[in-house]
Amino acid sequence: MSERLVIIGGDAAGMSAASQARRLKGPDELEIVAFERGHFTSYSACGIPYWVGGDVDERDELIARSPEEHRERDIDLRMRTEVVRIDVDEQRVLARDLDSNGSDGSDGSDAEYWTSYDKLVIATGARPVRPPLAGIDAPGVHGVQTLDDGQSLLDTLRRTEGRRAVVVGAGYIGVEMAEAMMNRGYEVTVVNRGAQPMSTLDADMGRLVGEAMAGMGIRMVNEAEVTKILTGEDGRVRAVATEDGEYPADVVILGIGVRPETGLAREAGLPVGTHGGLLTDRAMRVRGHDTIWAGGDCVEVLDLVSGSERHIALGTHANKHGQVIGSNVGGGYATFPGVVGTAVSKVCELEIARTGLREKDAKAAGLQYVTTTIESTSRAGYYPGAALMTVKMIAERRTGRLLGVQIVGREGAAKRVDIAAVALTAGMTVDQMVSLDLGYAPPFSPVWDPVLVAARKTVTAVRKAG
Amino acid sequence: MSERLVIIGGDAAGMSAASQARRLKGPDELEIVAFERGHFTSYSACGIPYWVGGDVDERDELIARSPEEHRERDIDLRMRTEVVRIDVDEQRVLARDLDSNGSDGSDGSDAEYWTSYDKLVIATGARPVRPPLAGIDAPGVHGVQTLDDGQSLLDTLRRTEGRRAVVVGAGYIGVEMAEAMMNRGYEVTVVNRGAQPMSTLDADMGRLVGEAMAGMGIRMVNEAEVTKILTGEDGRVRAVATEDGEYPADVVILGIGVRPETGLAREAGLPVGTHGGLLTDRAMRVRGHDTIWAGGDCVEVLDLVSGSERHIALGTHANKHGQVIGSNVGGGYATFPGVVGTAVSKVCELEIARTGLREKDAKAAGLQYVTTTIESTSRAGYYPGAALMTVKMIAERRTGRLLGVQIVGREGAAKRVDIAAVALTAGMTVDQMVSLDLGYAPPFSPVWDPVLVAARKTVTAVRKAG
Repeated sequence: MSERLVIIGGDAAGMSAASQARRLKGPDELEIVAFERGHFTSYSACGIPYWVGGDVDERDELIARSPEEHRERDIDLRMRTEVVRIDVDEQRVLARDLDSNGSDGSDGSDAEYWTSYDKLVIATGARPVRPPLAGIDAPGVHGVQTLDDGQSLLDTLRRTEGRRAVVVGAGYIGVEMAEAMMNRGYEVTVVNRGAQPMSTLDADMGRLVGEAMAGMGIRMVNEAEVTKILTGEDGRVRAVATEDGEYPADVVILGIGVRPETGLAREAGLPVGTHGGLLTDRAMRVRGHDTIWAGGDCVEVLDLVSGSERHIALGTHANKHGQVIGSNVGGGYATFPGVVGTAVSKVCELEIARTGLREKDAKAAGLQYVTTTIESTSRAGYYPGAALMTVKMIAERRTGRLLGVQIVGREGAAKRVDIAAVALTAGMTVDQMVSLDLGYAPPFSPVWDPVLVAARKTVTAVRKAG
Repeated sequence: MSERLVIIGGDAAGMSAASQARRLKGPDELEIVAFERGHFTSYSACGIPYWVGGDVDERDELIARSPEEHRERDIDLRMRTEVVRIDVDEQRVLARDLDSNGSDGSDGSDAEYWTSYDKLVIATGARPVRPPLAGIDAPGVHGVQTLDDGQSLLDTLRRTEGRRAVVVGAGYIGVEMAEAMMNRGYEVTVVNRGAQPMSTLDADMGRLVGEAMAGMGIRMVNEAEVTKILTGEDGRVRAVATEDGEYPADVVILGIGVRPETGLAREAGLPVGTHGGLLTDRAMRVRGHDTIWAGGDCVEVLDLVSGSERHIALGTHANKHGQVIGSNVGGGYATFPGVVGTAVSKVCELEIARTGLREKDAKAAGLQYVTTTIESTSRAGYYPGAALMTVKMIAERRTGRLLGVQIVGREGAAKRVDIAAVALTAGMTVDQMVSLDLGYAPPFSPVWDPVLVAARKTVTAVRKAG
């Protein structure tokens, strides 16, 4: 007898799960029904800043697989259809066709219907934080979470004559959007709550990012809380106000972060963690529920370094989750053991990377640690294009176990963090790292790779700390 | 009472050892005497192709630390002085001042003197292979092992009107010298014994390199053994002859490889391995000799993947060896656990990387394995500059343990091998690698890093092989 797999959410996690399940089981064994409330499937939200900035020409380049392509693989994909309820006891979901919703003057309930499932995948993603500020819904204020958001922002840019952009938030999305708007020829102001941009780094490393951004001509307004968004007589955005000042804006971009979209799951009584994400086991099955899986931006993940759960909205995790879920619902076996917290980003030429714990994470986890910071270059110092990079390393006191690495530099800096990411996964000590056999040739690295230079210095720091 | 440390060889391993020992012990505790037969200390031989090719302007940029700088740190450095004998029983070495040697018409023995040691470091490096061919010593035929070699080659290029270069050998030095001569505006022919260049890769990956080199306008002559070097009436080189043909040459560059320089050590009865390199323990102490250490290009190293010894002449290992030796002779403790065989190189825009075992290494080690080869891109496919790369992965049958990775691609390809290098060191399986938390953002990687794509496919291959 054929089983039915229902998937809520048609982006990375949901559709990767669908594709992998379909690889393992044909349509006569497994019926797959997927609900997506938006207009797109399987797209790269991480690519939106580059589309807005003009590095990517067409929206469709960001779409890995269209609804039609999914349907060709025997996935019953229902677009513009929102799941509004999960009935765990009856193993069914209530879906609503958004395009019929109320269009006939009714309350829309005609367009709702139940679909039963044998197995359920929740991949509802995350929603952007939108503080309840006056003016936040004014024309000219944009989030950049979805392709629709990106299109809407590009439409605004096309219509806008002024060239002043204010970006609210200085995390990954904030700094990437600052670059995008620079590339579009805007004067860019970044309004940031923290003392430094990139609160995912320690402050000393964040300061390097802030200085570099200022050097690129981006106006950095730190330690500033937005109090309201001011509009003109035409109702459009005119400025962003903080307690200390007003920053004129022809367009405002919100890059404040995201929260797991788990309202539906909470209402169904499914377990969520302290960060608001669904809790799963290693097979990505929702804890305590044998027939429900969850993955992507709506779940919490185990931080393998600290041992506690975190929420990280990142396409690469969502894809891995989908792969694992698809294997498991398709009768195979796979697990997602957790993350070490790797993230890379760039602002124009500046590359930013981190993995593992920051100092405050280490403290919060009750770990004693030492830190070192070194400067080195991406290539042999004598080789053309050798660019400075700063590497900060954090290791546990006594054991010397690597806890985290942060890198700020130019070309060749960011992906070096992968060395540390693998070392963290393997539980290596900095002593072990010193003798890592990393690729060396003058165009690619100094004879001691910057990560090894940091490891050597950290070994000494661990020894001194006793 | 002060001890005396004697060091034979003033390049990377020897002088790193000297510097590290000096850091740990002052001149009143430890006298350091170092002998170097050449004109230079602590230089980057790996940088010579880039100096010859014009990427590096001045020879001295390749020198990390000059004799004077070493002397300022209380190292008694004797340049142009060759050690001609090691007397292990008496703990002394016989040195000869090369600049006085025979210059007064005597046999040079006046310039020889004994120096006793408490601790000895052998860092005699490697010597280039020079087959005993007719014409190999003709003007216009050059090795590129030392700074003197590089200077001599550059002098020849300055004097040479013709623009035809033949490079003999297609390993790292050969392909890098092919690039260098291209950059100098030469027509380049590479004469290579193997069926493909880069015998450090499997043939299928080497073929990609050969095709790319041919596409750059380099004439590739494979499966060709040089039979002699032909000279003109002026005695200068005129062509390189193989069994099948003659290749006109205004300059010939030998890049055939190197062998450990261990004649001195052999004569002293020190243990050498099957590859001709000194055998040491993990602390880099020569086996069976409590007061003698050795490191750099003259030793064999443990291959952590196969469990057998190899000879790898690479500056990054030499520096690490020196660091370990210096710590140990200075009264500290450090070890060099071994290598996984990582190497990176480039020919113009083409990046080449390998780590771990090739198929033939795996076979020789008695390992059963599966291989997969994938194509992916350095960045998200839609991001500007995304460049194709080919990743080959080898994993042990049954266990799925990673055995090796080879990568050929463009920008962003080579240093990705570090991910595999760390995974090999940690003994990871390809299953474990699939969930590695590697840095992802569109300018730096597809959502599945190419190494993860290869790992996923290899997991499937391992499963199928059963």
